[in-house]
Amino acid sequence: MRIELITTGTELLLGKVVNTHAAFLGRELFKLGLRIQRQSTVPDGLEIRVALEEAVHRSDLVLVTGGLGPTSDDVTREVVAEMLGRTLSPDPRILELIHRMFRERGLPQNAANDRQAMVPQGAIVLENHFGTAPGLYLPADTAAGTPHLILLPGPPRELEPMFVEVVIPVLERILAQAHESRPFWRNFRIFGVGESNLASILDPLLSGVSGLELGYCARLGEVDLRLVGEPDSVEAFSAVVRREFYSKIVVESEDSIQQVVVELLKEAGKMVSTAESCTGGLIASTITDVPGSSSVFHRGYVVYANEAKADLLGVSRDLLDTVGAVSDEVVRAMAEGCLERSRADYAIAVSGIAGPGGGSVEKPVGTVYVALASRGSETHSGRHYFPIDRISFKQRVVRLSLDLLRRRLRGLPLDS
Amino acid sequence: MRIELITTGTELLLGKVVNTHAAFLGRELFKLGLRIQRQSTVPDGLEIRVALEEAVHRSDLVLVTGGLGPTSDDVTREVVAEMLGRTLSPDPRILELIHRMFRERGLPQNAANDRQAMVPQGAIVLENHFGTAPGLYLPADTAAGTPHLILLPGPPRELEPMFVEVVIPVLERILAQAHESRPFWRNFRIFGVGESNLASILDPLLSGVSGLELGYCARLGEVDLRLVGEPDSVEAFSAVVRREFYSKIVVESEDSIQQVVVELLKEAGKMVSTAESCTGGLIASTITDVPGSSSVFHRGYVVYANEAKADLLGVSRDLLDTVGAVSDEVVRAMAEGCLERSRADYAIAVSGIAGPGGGSVEKPVGTVYVALASRGSETHSGRHYFPIDRISFKQRVVRLSLDLLRRRLRGLPLDS
Repeated sequence: MRIELITTGTELLLGKVVNTHAAFLGRELFKLGLRIQRQSTVPDGLEIRVALEEAVHRSDLVLVTGGLGPTSDDVTREVVAEMLGRTLSPDPRILELIHRMFRERGLPQNAANDRQAMVPQGAIVLENHFGTAPGLYLPADTAAGTPHLILLPGPPRELEPMFVEVVIPVLERILAQAHESRPFWRNFRIFGVGESNLASILDPLLSGVSGLELGYCARLGEVDLRLVGEPDSVEAFSAVVRREFYSKIVVESEDSIQQVVVELLKEAGKMVSTAESCTGGLIASTITDVPGSSSVFHRGYVVYANEAKADLLGVSRDLLDTVGAVSDEVVRAMAEGCLERSRADYAIAVSGIAGPGGGSVEKPVGTVYVALASRGSETHSGRHYFPIDRISFKQRVVRLSLDLLRRRLRGLPLDS
Repeated sequence: MRIELITTGTELLLGKVVNTHAAFLGRELFKLGLRIQRQSTVPDGLEIRVALEEAVHRSDLVLVTGGLGPTSDDVTREVVAEMLGRTLSPDPRILELIHRMFRERGLPQNAANDRQAMVPQGAIVLENHFGTAPGLYLPADTAAGTPHLILLPGPPRELEPMFVEVVIPVLERILAQAHESRPFWRNFRIFGVGESNLASILDPLLSGVSGLELGYCARLGEVDLRLVGEPDSVEAFSAVVRREFYSKIVVESEDSIQQVVVELLKEAGKMVSTAESCTGGLIASTITDVPGSSSVFHRGYVVYANEAKADLLGVSRDLLDTVGAVSDEVVRAMAEGCLERSRADYAIAVSGIAGPGGGSVEKPVGTVYVALASRGSETHSGRHYFPIDRISFKQRVVRLSLDLLRRRLRGLPLDS
């Protein structure tokens, strides 16, 4: 099934907004075993006509985002109707929904908004619970040689829930009619192994296994490994992956490491506190990105200056003066000081040089010490080196710290 | 000048990576007065051939990203050479650079890597200081009817510096030869005014002004307003914008609000500390994203629990019990407690309900109190309401807090 995606929006081409639709839709379609074969972005207005004509003639399904709103450059609906030779007429139910929304907000009605209720003949309305413009589904017309067309609103907040709630069931019906079987897949999120290293271990093991495709996607410190294919092959190779990387598999899903850690803390009834220098609060912020994390996050200290490390965490000034803030001794003292001063069960501490300034020969920019203090166990610490830009460095250190806590909570070895 | 962009990469279509090239290149080209008219993404491999042929026939310039690497599905170079009827031959200088890099890293040479040194006849090499595959510029051939072609490496860390250092000068030469004048532009980053509100004030003032185009781009709490056109018109209208929104203009550039605040603190020789509840450390982390912020950031407290607010900041337990943590009284006590306990000149405190749980009728999810305590001035505080998802809520509150400090540092009114 060949799928194309056309995203419309001048702002996407002016670089003021990053196009997240392609990634979102690519991910959702992949779960159905489908792939986008071509994605195009066109500005608002009539340029969409050419892109649509190209796509329609070589695809089985064309997804279009944007251009369904009330302004004069929202022309997707009209261009599609014209191309397919369908008349447009107002849908009384959508019209009433739009009018009611305007009344409730005390806004004056206007004809421009009524345009959003126009529906091409034969189209199925996809309800929009987060905006006024509905989506539209035009089933394929084999006689006319036109593919399935699905028109979606531009704002991600409207498109994303609509896709999950309404479009996926439509696609499942299309797949069932086409007798296409949905492939089986599994995702492993693996921490602390490089993509090429992972591939060099797994690819040789793959020879002799049929009906299986491996996909890798690397991010700072993390690799998503995806197995797609025949259920038996996927399950058999999953066992191989688990055997080879058991301590490094963060999760067999697409949950983030912070979701995993918060969940493990909740299960164990434990809390964590943080003492951050070079990450500047990002560990605490990342943990507290998870809804409900307040029950497992105790408190955080952002101790950039030596004075703060001494005052707030009781790190000895002598130690700071002799070995320096970026050192194994200090980061251990930070973690232990943090644990002593809070009712948490674990304390994470980090101290490093995010750069671009502040490096030396012994401790170049990118050097970081990370410690984990735990009630009733020895403090663990280590030195790491990530010579990357400041923002990536912070994110990398956050993930490393959270992985350390994950290992502790799962009873896995902390060094690897 | 009609420009198309073709980005290649299966990972972009599988949704594992967000395509940031379109946004980056759109922004950079806009500064030269150029716009991308169409952007397409194709998977790795030969699908690029069709996209290239379509683009070449209707464009003056085609930019292609990706597919220049050493693996078998990196075919951009070969497809372009074939399409233009050019032979490929190895460039000895690039070959030597690749070999040297491999020697230095102690890696074995291999033929696949040598492919990256192949250059189509007539192409100009664009050096890559961050990777092995160079970019290529093939000037337009009016006799053959082919446009300018610029091939760039896929990884953003290689593409972005190459574009700024090498491609922009190439484009400037192309523009000079075409006698296209570079338009004049100005960017205003405006805080706390909605996009439609901004437009409703500015659009009427625009009537009678010729040779001027306004562009708006809204992000959480911030709008970028861009004036593009004749220098005189841009300057005259810039004066209007300054008059209408003087206290709300964060900066007349594209600097982030954290860069502006760190710069203002440095100029004033002042420091800030933070006491965060619902933002969980993100204010501290955002400030410390700015290189050199260690001289202006004093310390941060992440005080999720009431106990932490009392212990670390001296907020009275009675107050917490009677009015609750999400209140004007508590957020003021947090800011003042934070200021007392640190040597900073300013303290920002926030307390709110990020959701999805924890809301009530009086204080629904999205409610937040923000306070700014300053040495020698009265503490300022206010209640705000952002009924948006948890992550957006945190970012919105961070920007609001930083804008409050910006206003204080600039001597502007704190309420608006």
